[in-house]
Amino acid sequence: MTRQELVAQIRKKKSFLCVGLDPDLEKMPACVKAEDDPIFAFNKQIIDATLPYAVAYKPNTAFYEAYGLKGMSALQKTVRYLQGKNVLTIADAKRGDIGNTSSRYARAFLADEGDFGFDAMTVAPYMGSDSVSPFFEIPGKWVVLLALTSNPGSADFQTAEGCRPFLYQRVLEVSRAWGHEGNLMYVVGATKADMLKEVRRIAPRHFLLVPGVGAQGGSLEEVCRNGFVEGEAGLIINASRSILYASSGADFAQAAAGQALALQKQMSVYV
Amino acid sequence: MTRQELVAQIRKKKSFLCVGLDPDLEKMPACVKAEDDPIFAFNKQIIDATLPYAVAYKPNTAFYEAYGLKGMSALQKTVRYLQGKNVLTIADAKRGDIGNTSSRYARAFLADEGDFGFDAMTVAPYMGSDSVSPFFEIPGKWVVLLALTSNPGSADFQTAEGCRPFLYQRVLEVSRAWGHEGNLMYVVGATKADMLKEVRRIAPRHFLLVPGVGAQGGSLEEVCRNGFVEGEAGLIINASRSILYASSGADFAQAAAGQALALQKQMSVYV
Repeated sequence: MTRQELVAQIRKKKSFLCVGLDPDLEKMPACVKAEDDPIFAFNKQIIDATLPYAVAYKPNTAFYEAYGLKGMSALQKTVRYLQGKNVLTIADAKRGDIGNTSSRYARAFLADEGDFGFDAMTVAPYMGSDSVSPFFEIPGKWVVLLALTSNPGSADFQTAEGCRPFLYQRVLEVSRAWGHEGNLMYVVGATKADMLKEVRRIAPRHFLLVPGVGAQGGSLEEVCRNGFVEGEAGLIINASRSILYASSGADFAQAAAGQALALQKQMSVYV
Repeated sequence: MTRQELVAQIRKKKSFLCVGLDPDLEKMPACVKAEDDPIFAFNKQIIDATLPYAVAYKPNTAFYEAYGLKGMSALQKTVRYLQGKNVLTIADAKRGDIGNTSSRYARAFLADEGDFGFDAMTVAPYMGSDSVSPFFEIPGKWVVLLALTSNPGSADFQTAEGCRPFLYQRVLEVSRAWGHEGNLMYVVGATKADMLKEVRRIAPRHFLLVPGVGAQGGSLEEVCRNGFVEGEAGLIINASRSILYASSGADFAQAAAGQALALQKQMSVYV
């Protein structure tokens, strides 16, 4: 999915919502757990219910890996079900290793001839340029590079004193040269105004994947005020638990649709 | 495997060699490629041939993920084959995410009731303390934290000017409090003397996983001179391609044994 196609979907659906498909069997209703493949059965219903309101879907691979080989099989069915639906599929895998090993991660998730064929995947920056560049070698795909997160530990290194500039700023500055605005996005979790302004100063037009608003940081309004790219949004805002587990009953999909619609309505003000 | 058990094996085998099980079908001999599960067939023979000389085995999960669901199945068979053989099994996965997500990664690879049950796994530090601490919650297991690597990109962030101390030093200093010498190791790839001295200044007794000697950095002698822990080694030195692909013929396992033995002989001088 190209940047132009993504922007077109954002304008068409008046939404920049991403649904985080993070399965937790303990939170799923009984009707789904009775299925042969509960995870895929759940995801399929969530996708069907939220498709009008979301432009992207982001399974976090950890949730599937925790269910072993069965979980990875469900992940495969899920991303294949999403194909042809005009949504951006993001493998939230946060992979990264030395060059030839990163190539294999890229192939694993992004290669269309592989088992998954995601449009995009999250990548960790710690090992620097040659650990990230292989991810750009698969044409037509996106690298979503970890930059700034909003968990407490982000202060350990990303914004640690003793670094000028801060590590997250350095990651943004240095990595801009590794890709371009049509194949490189950034994970930016901290949605406080000053942080987002600083991110935009360094990366004015790159798409930003924002893991959540509300519980995890600033309000949607604050994020849009400081992070929006005129005419294109330039933001993909993820919601997972609030949508997936809005109801633990048989009406879970309708409840999910309701939550997704509510978020889309808030976003429609901007696009 | 406890630290004491690991040290006992090191002394018994007079070796601190780790065999990196990084499968590449293109490099395997025809006899193996004809098998139902070529990757596991290959690994099994490598393990059988090198077991007398190695105290640890480290599959890099990227190589298995690149082969899709079949690759992950081969990884499962491989780690299960290693169980009960008194060797340290390390999932080189370099995972890391926010707290509750890291818990799932830990469960995926380390939980004995899961599909794999590794003794140890590599973890990435970028997101800080609460992204790493969940990996310590599974008893009897090791976290191998990425600290300093030897690829060109390590200069982008790990040793970037403008940080006092360097990022890799900060990672070592801050992370010491997250675990202890019985459950925390570090990946230290740069084996130049000054780097290793600095690592040992901060972490005098933690085990260090060294991805390779020779091609990737200093000599074994230099690594031992600057990194060895008296009486315990405190080092695990990984070799992959030089062992696995020593021969591309039907004698690949014997050739692998020869390479492993040669390395063990060099190491036996120290333990």
